[in-house]
Amino acid sequence: MKAVVFDKELKLVKDYEKPTPKEGEALIRVTLAGICNTDYEITKGYMGYKGILGHEAVGVVEDVNGEDKSLIGKRVVSEISYGCKEPDCLYCAEKLYRHCPNRHTLGIWKKDGCFAEYFTMPIEVLFEVPDNVPDEQAVFVEPLAAACEITEQLHIKPFEKVIVLGDGKLGLITALTLNAQNIDVTLVGKHQNKLDIAKAQGVRTALLQDFPIEKKYDVVVEATGSVSGFETSIALTKPRGVLVLKSTVATGKELNLAPIVIDEITVLGSRCGQFGPALRLLESGKIDFTPLISARYKADDAIEAFEKNKEKETLKVLLEF
Amino acid sequence: MKAVVFDKELKLVKDYEKPTPKEGEALIRVTLAGICNTDYEITKGYMGYKGILGHEAVGVVEDVNGEDKSLIGKRVVSEISYGCKEPDCLYCAEKLYRHCPNRHTLGIWKKDGCFAEYFTMPIEVLFEVPDNVPDEQAVFVEPLAAACEITEQLHIKPFEKVIVLGDGKLGLITALTLNAQNIDVTLVGKHQNKLDIAKAQGVRTALLQDFPIEKKYDVVVEATGSVSGFETSIALTKPRGVLVLKSTVATGKELNLAPIVIDEITVLGSRCGQFGPALRLLESGKIDFTPLISARYKADDAIEAFEKNKEKETLKVLLEF
Repeated sequence: MKAVVFDKELKLVKDYEKPTPKEGEALIRVTLAGICNTDYEITKGYMGYKGILGHEAVGVVEDVNGEDKSLIGKRVVSEISYGCKEPDCLYCAEKLYRHCPNRHTLGIWKKDGCFAEYFTMPIEVLFEVPDNVPDEQAVFVEPLAAACEITEQLHIKPFEKVIVLGDGKLGLITALTLNAQNIDVTLVGKHQNKLDIAKAQGVRTALLQDFPIEKKYDVVVEATGSVSGFETSIALTKPRGVLVLKSTVATGKELNLAPIVIDEITVLGSRCGQFGPALRLLESGKIDFTPLISARYKADDAIEAFEKNKEKETLKVLLEF
Repeated sequence: MKAVVFDKELKLVKDYEKPTPKEGEALIRVTLAGICNTDYEITKGYMGYKGILGHEAVGVVEDVNGEDKSLIGKRVVSEISYGCKEPDCLYCAEKLYRHCPNRHTLGIWKKDGCFAEYFTMPIEVLFEVPDNVPDEQAVFVEPLAAACEITEQLHIKPFEKVIVLGDGKLGLITALTLNAQNIDVTLVGKHQNKLDIAKAQGVRTALLQDFPIEKKYDVVVEATGSVSGFETSIALTKPRGVLVLKSTVATGKELNLAPIVIDEITVLGSRCGQFGPALRLLESGKIDFTPLISARYKADDAIEAFEKNKEKETLKVLLEF
């Protein structure tokens, strides 16, 4: 089968062996996949991963190795991690597979990814896609779930004021997701054309250059990935407020953490999320992700798609299998 | 009056003008005061403060400017900040004066400190010292309150495992305080003689060199003030656990915040605390701070006392007025 593989270099392999589902796993034929910045990070050495890339995809179940065959023929999305499911694993007990110390993560850690014609995953992390959700929306479920994770971790009260800083795809998806939950959110970024995508769906937006930097916001979501963005986020968070760290902040500069202590700020690391709430949001139609699609490529042009993903103006790049 | 003043340099002034209490303030005659590392930081330029140093003291109220004279003759301690008390100040409404944007802070910000024969503070931040608490214990109330602040901010469940990293006075006071609240705490440090102070009062202790660094602790309190301590703290915090940042971590090195996102750690900045719970602990006799007293100096020898405070082995240095 065709597969997009990273092994010292990024390559399109045309005769990769089709995977066989293990006990409890399904075989999924991929229809549409999305490139995430983590995929790009992996090609620069992140996690030391080698194998098929990709962790965002929609597909159709072709086979199940197990008694329950009910998913066969169904259109599904897959959470990206599965755990050990040992009886004493607190994380697996809470379905927080992404924190299981013996986890496997699709296309990131010990498990071939979904940038291929087929991939396998345990059926307990597969979710059927509602009929009214087209592939072009469903393919966003993983970053959408990561945005939903914020309200899984943190109770944002209806009167609290939230800032999302950064108008890349992470910031846009986060702002759209919080707004869809009736949270009082303002997206602050540097690019009017990107801000306009959120604005068109009812999100309050502001250009950073016009936005007063005052420490008065209850919750600030850092979605820039830059050190200056981290510092601006601290400067926007009120004393005893919460700074949600969504992106892995680029290091390479000294960070001053003293304001975190002085203002007793809570810095909340926030990562992936569960798919249930994300699929409910998709089904509700409260968010339209199509304006975030910058380009679609056939699998044969995957290398070109990765090049497109690197461009500064690009939001989401999709791959068709 | 005698006063220890910082103005470009540290000096003992013998004829400083005795303060006059403003409306609502008390005049306090200082008996015993404690040197904090913040005082030392101020002498290196922290906060740009100039004036009488000091924010840890016990004293006796000599006068009150106001109708309620009931504190006169009472032995008191003073919280270090007072706020604007404007009706719309959320922080003052919660008695979180330390976060009031228009606050004054004893010996740190816009308010002469307590390293003097007399100081003044508003009566609403003064607390009477229980009769059974000697000056030598009461003088620790401010750092004790800062340790109590952790359980004001964070619900530590009885089955959760807590590490305090760092066996300086901050770490010792924090470990003793958590232990006195029946929290399952282990103090980890580099100095057996300092660890033994906590051990003698029932705290579980361990030398860092013998302690396995595993990310399995629910709550880790960073009390070293060093970058390596911060990194060790992250390495000890379990996924979704809480790292309490008690010290202003020394910068000067790149900090890698990625593990905070990957493991969804909460970093909780924690600073000063309210005196009520701290005084209850002192009254209960559950903690004995006298082993932390490294030296006592007369006010006339204050400069020498500051020199002593700089020494690596020193814990608390007291000043008698």
